[in-house]
Amino acid sequence: MNSLFRIALDTMSGDNGLQAVVPAALDSLKKHNDLFLILIGDEQQLKDELSRYKQLSNERLSIRHSTQVVTMEDAPASALRNKKDSSMRVAINLVKEGEADAAVSAGNTGALMATGRFVLRMLPGIDRPAICTAIPSTTGHTYMLDLGANIDSSAKHLYQFAVMGTELARAIDGKEKPRIGLLNIGQEDIKGNEQVKAAHELIKQGGFNYIGFVEGDDIFHGDVDVIVCDGFVGNVALKSSEGVAKMLSQELKKSYTKNIFTRFAALVSLPVLRSFQHRFDHRRYNGASFLGLKGIVIKSHGGADRLAFANAISIARKEVMEKVPGKIERHLKKLMETDS
Amino acid sequence: MNSLFRIALDTMSGDNGLQAVVPAALDSLKKHNDLFLILIGDEQQLKDELSRYKQLSNERLSIRHSTQVVTMEDAPASALRNKKDSSMRVAINLVKEGEADAAVSAGNTGALMATGRFVLRMLPGIDRPAICTAIPSTTGHTYMLDLGANIDSSAKHLYQFAVMGTELARAIDGKEKPRIGLLNIGQEDIKGNEQVKAAHELIKQGGFNYIGFVEGDDIFHGDVDVIVCDGFVGNVALKSSEGVAKMLSQELKKSYTKNIFTRFAALVSLPVLRSFQHRFDHRRYNGASFLGLKGIVIKSHGGADRLAFANAISIARKEVMEKVPGKIERHLKKLMETDS
Repeated sequence: MNSLFRIALDTMSGDNGLQAVVPAALDSLKKHNDLFLILIGDEQQLKDELSRYKQLSNERLSIRHSTQVVTMEDAPASALRNKKDSSMRVAINLVKEGEADAAVSAGNTGALMATGRFVLRMLPGIDRPAICTAIPSTTGHTYMLDLGANIDSSAKHLYQFAVMGTELARAIDGKEKPRIGLLNIGQEDIKGNEQVKAAHELIKQGGFNYIGFVEGDDIFHGDVDVIVCDGFVGNVALKSSEGVAKMLSQELKKSYTKNIFTRFAALVSLPVLRSFQHRFDHRRYNGASFLGLKGIVIKSHGGADRLAFANAISIARKEVMEKVPGKIERHLKKLMETDS
Repeated sequence: MNSLFRIALDTMSGDNGLQAVVPAALDSLKKHNDLFLILIGDEQQLKDELSRYKQLSNERLSIRHSTQVVTMEDAPASALRNKKDSSMRVAINLVKEGEADAAVSAGNTGALMATGRFVLRMLPGIDRPAICTAIPSTTGHTYMLDLGANIDSSAKHLYQFAVMGTELARAIDGKEKPRIGLLNIGQEDIKGNEQVKAAHELIKQGGFNYIGFVEGDDIFHGDVDVIVCDGFVGNVALKSSEGVAKMLSQELKKSYTKNIFTRFAALVSLPVLRSFQHRFDHRRYNGASFLGLKGIVIKSHGGADRLAFANAISIARKEVMEKVPGKIERHLKKLMETDS
């Protein structure tokens, strides 16, 4: 039992609740025989759902009853104060207490972040946590952070993001020297604000495989592995990109259902369109890492379905295997020793 | 001659130089019989190019010789100081002197902005110019500003962008009460930085058709006509969106050329794909407005081709017809009178 990776799943918080989380958990257990999953939520509902899949007695699965649910409307502070028995809080508590190696939740981002910070605390040397996720690119994917945990990030924060992004890309993709880029605006007169300019100097001297400034379109070119940016900017970039991708795929679908001829064209094109859609399926990229905490917390999209939630579990498993928080801590320590 | 709209074209600055600008000019003259175009650049080269199209003596076209060219590498200050006879500078000078009603250039954004500010000056009540362009959405398009002229915009600047965006959407699309949104990040704990929060209060009280905060993906939903944001954020959002759209269309093309079967599928799909591409053709959206100046300056993409540059000319014409700078000035005056 010792070698199993134990992951706590908040089953109650996402839009699809345990109807998505339970089958995702079962899929994950089938896929990875080194996993042990703890389902946190209403015991009766969980048992009902598990019995639907005839999986009431899976030895790599346990249920942990919780009585409360954090809603999307709950303010982080109020969730912290008033929902101490929520599925989200219990999941994070289990990580703190060493009963789980990671927690996955599709709940309220703000509440999850606040709970993670409060219960697990920050790694020494990290001021602020960052949200990081992989975004599909021409040649694979690009990690981007921060995606909304921080606004008005200072140069020092951006530098810390570079450390965390480096360790994540190393751990997940096995890239020894991931290429780091700093998001900026180019060409124009004013090249970046003061924080970005100062971060540029810091990161340059940090021993990274630093390729310098990148722009918004570089997220997709595949020439950089990790893009560092302020959370406001990163959040807007991510949502804009998702928005345009969604619009284009909807409009393409519309174009193909206009009339009999286009429907025929669609029929012939189906395999092409399907393989195209598969490659850029956002569900295959579901699962954002909350980096900088003393523990592993993965945020799934609120609307995640079975496939998407299972992907978030896979990311959690990978971070547990690779001991990402420990690697971030060591990297920081080394940098601080070099400094002094 | 009085009723003609006179537009000065910088023919030397874009990547494609006068090979793109001259045919674009000729197309525009054919399309709009109320246009008069002034081609600024090397006289001999312009004559050679015009004679290729057998258009040496078009009565709605004139040539203005200039000896210098601002390159993409020129720093704005150095372009201002050292290239007083550049095609870019002469185009803006003509607007200042009343010989042209607008200028269009595909040159260096920073130099064009600096030249515009220096020669034309700002409208009273506007602290900083903004770059604004239309971005295709599900239902039409959304104007977004600022796209990179300003970083660290204050609440007051964002408020001024709301005024300018309102007038541009009114002028170009005839929307009496365009819906204004303020770009923010949602859901998360920290909802926006101080500037955005303060701008929210200012815009709320400004008599706009203000719909409140919007997020990155709202650019494409068609529920908002004008999105106001800081230039750093707007630039990243625009470039990210362009990047993902480009990647998706390239990958789609690749999917269709994989093998004989997919080539057949492509053949059958061609009309569908073409109409789809046409709708989102970025060239049809080429032409960013420099708002806030005492005069009309349109920035074309550096890589603009004939079709794209002609679109930038159309935007200039529309802004001249609708007297956009005058409308922005009156709107501001009215707001200031209400304030006091």
